Amino acid sequence: MKINNMVDAKRKIGIVGSGSWATAMVKMLGDNVLDKEILWWIRKEEDLTYVKTYNHNPSYLSAVELRVAPENLYLDARSVIQKSDIVILNTPSAYLKDALRDVSAEDFQGKIVVTAIKGIIPDENLIVGEYLTKIYAIPLTQIVVIGGPCHAEEVSAEKLSYLTIAGKDATNAEKVAEVLRNRYINTIISKDVYGVEYGAVLKNIYALAGGICHGLGFGDNFLAVLVSNAIREMSKCVMAIDPEADRDINASAYLGDLLVTAYSQFSRNRTFGHMIGKGYTVQSAQLEMNMVAEGYYASACIQNIIQRYALDMPICNMVYQILYNRQPANEAVKQLAQKLT
Amino acid sequence: MKINNMVDAKRKIGIVGSGSWATAMVKMLGDNVLDKEILWWIRKEEDLTYVKTYNHNPSYLSAVELRVAPENLYLDARSVIQKSDIVILNTPSAYLKDALRDVSAEDFQGKIVVTAIKGIIPDENLIVGEYLTKIYAIPLTQIVVIGGPCHAEEVSAEKLSYLTIAGKDATNAEKVAEVLRNRYINTIISKDVYGVEYGAVLKNIYALAGGICHGLGFGDNFLAVLVSNAIREMSKCVMAIDPEADRDINASAYLGDLLVTAYSQFSRNRTFGHMIGKGYTVQSAQLEMNMVAEGYYASACIQNIIQRYALDMPICNMVYQILYNRQPANEAVKQLAQKLT
Repeated sequence: MKINNMVDAKRKIGIVGSGSWATAMVKMLGDNVLDKEILWWIRKEEDLTYVKTYNHNPSYLSAVELRVAPENLYLDARSVIQKSDIVILNTPSAYLKDALRDVSAEDFQGKIVVTAIKGIIPDENLIVGEYLTKIYAIPLTQIVVIGGPCHAEEVSAEKLSYLTIAGKDATNAEKVAEVLRNRYINTIISKDVYGVEYGAVLKNIYALAGGICHGLGFGDNFLAVLVSNAIREMSKCVMAIDPEADRDINASAYLGDLLVTAYSQFSRNRTFGHMIGKGYTVQSAQLEMNMVAEGYYASACIQNIIQRYALDMPICNMVYQILYNRQPANEAVKQLAQKLT
Repeated sequence: MKINNMVDAKRKIGIVGSGSWATAMVKMLGDNVLDKEILWWIRKEEDLTYVKTYNHNPSYLSAVELRVAPENLYLDARSVIQKSDIVILNTPSAYLKDALRDVSAEDFQGKIVVTAIKGIIPDENLIVGEYLTKIYAIPLTQIVVIGGPCHAEEVSAEKLSYLTIAGKDATNAEKVAEVLRNRYINTIISKDVYGVEYGAVLKNIYALAGGICHGLGFGDNFLAVLVSNAIREMSKCVMAIDPEADRDINASAYLGDLLVTAYSQFSRNRTFGHMIGKGYTVQSAQLEMNMVAEGYYASACIQNIIQRYALDMPICNMVYQILYNRQPANEAVKQLAQKLT
């Protein structure tokens, strides 16, 4: 790829998003040794100015030094997308529509479009991969999904972590993997685009459920049973959506991602659930956290899927009843406890 | 079973062992509502005297009130076994031989013999179920295995927990389950005697591995990948030992038990591993803990199985190389990290 150091032979990687996961990914790209240019869309002007001046993001993972040329920082996602070969979408799912408001299908043409977003587009009830296919007519072969288990906080501390890079086109998946892997990031290539993305969406609901139970005073013995039931539920759901004989639900991208989220103190979904378990209403928990946990939107979307495929998914169903139908959490968990095996 | 409250129609349940898990089980039995007599073998005379006087075990879970009639406390395991219909063996695996030194095959005749021990009999390299069959000629149909996930500490706090009760004879398994379940203990019946016991043995090795990695400074992202690989390794191993098409390795007794151990602060195996990761030698870690972690013996036994079945089990193999062949932990984990997927 590198021809006589000619500038235009360099890989151009665009990142759309400036939260903690996007910031961690900018760090990964910077610590990867391949020659490349990083282009970065930052949402807030004051953050962009700060990054330009100090090479640190003032709002997220602020200890991390970031290596992006000042002229490659943008407030405009369209420019980043147009100028990149690989576009990594990495906003909270609720803000993706807004970030892409000026972007057209043409802007994405010929690009590898990567989603590192683990959530549902609100109102659309679509995972990001489906949304990109539907709205921007991006062929499925050009879509790549990045799965965990990978907390941004540990990336910032350079703790050895694994990313699963899923693409129907293995060459495109590898093109993404080769710019991300570095001394503390290992990559695993997969073809399971839908499975990895739906798994990542579902695990947020299960982390929320774990938080609810913890908030109600249930302990680690119960959590272990809950998670063991959750992975079986996840398998059932993903197999209904996309039957794929080769999928091993215990691989890192599914079980590993579920574990790191359900057992993490960093998880927003777990924290949100914990507040619900403690007796907060959904509205007051959202206000208190000053953000919306991905699992909240995911819950509504998965409820549709449960109905469409007539699935028996008691944990997801419980979360839905608590969040959307105001069922008291203690009563809902008591009912669930009778169904766990 | 209860005929006009006649004393000799009462179920007689014997517990052999007085550590924390045995003490938790005495509490469970006491909180179960069925009419029964509990007989308890306590190893140390001073502990027995204390229990007789105060109804609390001074050495383990000392806050827990225990309901055993003073005349049913014994320093002699043989009497407990002879007088019981159901015998629950619940010592550390390394002390079982000693506890049963005066017990003969006849003493066990006609009893349901339950093992709540999750380990290997040292020198014999046998799991407890196999040892009982071999030494005491107990028919497999009379053996019942109790699996987790269930920390003694959370039982003492009456946190809702699930036990898996496995027996080839479902009636015998149910006889054990019906005396253990209570307001905070749910039971799951299984036929997978070997799978549940080998799973419980293997999970100690994986918890030890998790401790080693944690001691070396690896984080939660890595632990999630390790555990996701561990459950696949466990499945491979248990299927080689006892192919059983119906077994779902993600059930509570296998994955749940692995999770509660690998993610627990209470786990001795994790603590032992952590010290190894921090640079302690095996000998000094054992001295410092004043006990031997079950995973230590399990590691040697499983290494035999790996060789017998020519299995590829990199995590168990790593633990063995560190514990028995003095491979430096950091080097061993670095090699392992290349094999994880």
